[in-house]
Amino acid sequence: MDISMIEAADRRLEGHVRRTPLLNSPFLDQIAGRRVLVKPECLQHTGSFKFRGGWSAITALSGDERARGVLATSSGNHAQGIAMAAAAHGVRAVIIMPSDAPAVKIENTRALGAEVVLYDRATEDRDLLAADRIEAEGLTFIPPYDHPQVIAGQGSVGLEIAAQAQLEDVGTADVLVCCGGGGLSSGIALALEDRAPGLRLRTVEPEGFDDFARSLAEGRICRNPATSGSICDAILTPEPGRLTFPIVSRLAGPGMVVTEDQCLRAVALAFSRLRIVLEPGGAAALAAALFHPDDIDGDAVIAVATGGNVEASIFRQALDRYA
Amino acid sequence: MDISMIEAADRRLEGHVRRTPLLNSPFLDQIAGRRVLVKPECLQHTGSFKFRGGWSAITALSGDERARGVLATSSGNHAQGIAMAAAAHGVRAVIIMPSDAPAVKIENTRALGAEVVLYDRATEDRDLLAADRIEAEGLTFIPPYDHPQVIAGQGSVGLEIAAQAQLEDVGTADVLVCCGGGGLSSGIALALEDRAPGLRLRTVEPEGFDDFARSLAEGRICRNPATSGSICDAILTPEPGRLTFPIVSRLAGPGMVVTEDQCLRAVALAFSRLRIVLEPGGAAALAAALFHPDDIDGDAVIAVATGGNVEASIFRQALDRYA
Repeated sequence: MDISMIEAADRRLEGHVRRTPLLNSPFLDQIAGRRVLVKPECLQHTGSFKFRGGWSAITALSGDERARGVLATSSGNHAQGIAMAAAAHGVRAVIIMPSDAPAVKIENTRALGAEVVLYDRATEDRDLLAADRIEAEGLTFIPPYDHPQVIAGQGSVGLEIAAQAQLEDVGTADVLVCCGGGGLSSGIALALEDRAPGLRLRTVEPEGFDDFARSLAEGRICRNPATSGSICDAILTPEPGRLTFPIVSRLAGPGMVVTEDQCLRAVALAFSRLRIVLEPGGAAALAAALFHPDDIDGDAVIAVATGGNVEASIFRQALDRYA
Repeated sequence: MDISMIEAADRRLEGHVRRTPLLNSPFLDQIAGRRVLVKPECLQHTGSFKFRGGWSAITALSGDERARGVLATSSGNHAQGIAMAAAAHGVRAVIIMPSDAPAVKIENTRALGAEVVLYDRATEDRDLLAADRIEAEGLTFIPPYDHPQVIAGQGSVGLEIAAQAQLEDVGTADVLVCCGGGGLSSGIALALEDRAPGLRLRTVEPEGFDDFARSLAEGRICRNPATSGSICDAILTPEPGRLTFPIVSRLAGPGMVVTEDQCLRAVALAFSRLRIVLEPGGAAALAAALFHPDDIDGDAVIAVATGGNVEASIFRQALDRYA
């Protein structure tokens, strides 16, 4: 796993990925007490950065693997990224999703042409379901983060940030990333190491699901007590990945933690100040940038807004409370 | 007023304007029955394309004019565009706004450093107020659309669309633009005439405020019976401009008209499918693209989403009804 894999994935993405801009607002700068730059991956195809890793993984398959199809497990954003990338290449995609995933994510994954298999988190074993289908149908498994080509695809965000930060004369800054299993964080960290030594990766997680922050502090992989029960569904994972954690551990600053309420406030501010739609989990990095300025180093801060697939009812909550 | 003025304005905007991408979604293509590409000027500085014309006009002033300051009249988006462009150049800005303009637009204009003068539409004469201040203080008036440098700045949207449509292999398409006084429409029309002969401008207005559609049909400037009383506040103007109408009349197809309800549906679809925040007036072109497919020519349609400065209460209405 190195920068050349990220560069290769970036070349495969060229002409297909949306190169998202860096957004800013003087009103956000004022709240944070420093310059805030937001990378809106909610504008990416399928509404999250996951399209990048999905495209990278699908285009790295052999002809034989493409012919047999792929399988992914996901609560929603990876599901949609894989579904769209697979459909674009005529590859069959089977996606195993928890039945309590946001309805909009389940619907979109189906509408993008994937076969969705729902399972009950409480009574069924997702990994067993997956293993059965993989064995019976010869499918290739594409995990949501612990996979070199997935990490490589997500790393393209880091290449873009490095180039954009230079254009914007950013100098030194922390790059805050909403973090689940660490695929995006590790990919960005590797890209920044190579291209932008003045930029440092920071993971951001919701309170109660701060496996990365604790793992970084303790220097070993720590698990979350639960993996559901937060409006930040997009970034709830059991523990840091085996591939992603060593990379993040070597390159990142201390992990940051935000409350659900801070995420909702960030959703409302992204609405009014940037005119973008974020899901709570996709707003965690912006929340950290705005509401934890003392934990951040640098004249500027870059926040990756990772996704915008949000139920209208949750978005309404953010507006009702904070807009 | 010609392409060279637009090119010059575009050069002055370089490095300052946000070059907005073209967004799309397979779900929108399905509704429209053709490829839909959306130019999200809600992501522009100050949340609307008006920043472009404001910057163009301010940077075209003489040193003496800059030293004395500028005055603008606006219900909100032009106000913010002028305020931000003026502040960036250390130019004093006085903005005359109706007291019933959306609160968020009044607040933002003030926060961007402009002096805001509110007037009562029913009892006060805006033009008289403006004339008094201009004469007493030597301010330069920058009207919202009927001004060569404002049109030139807005025309930069057209240069970008022409280049992006070529990259996307669009071929022939109608370019739908939410239309008030015609500054953006005329600027885009001139840019397309020079750079993209396969693209044709279409104005889009809300029902009851369709002065451009009627004027285009009759070949002469027709007035609206009213200029307030719609949630599409951003694009309500008394009549087509003296500078803008001849340009639009020469280059555009028939004017299109949408209902307020269709605008709200487009706001909800932009939320769920593009993850951008639009105000109803800024969603008129998207509404026309989605809900009036039979009035459009071409394999693709390009809709300019002109602004996203929306009160939370209006946005909530769109979500409540359609998301």
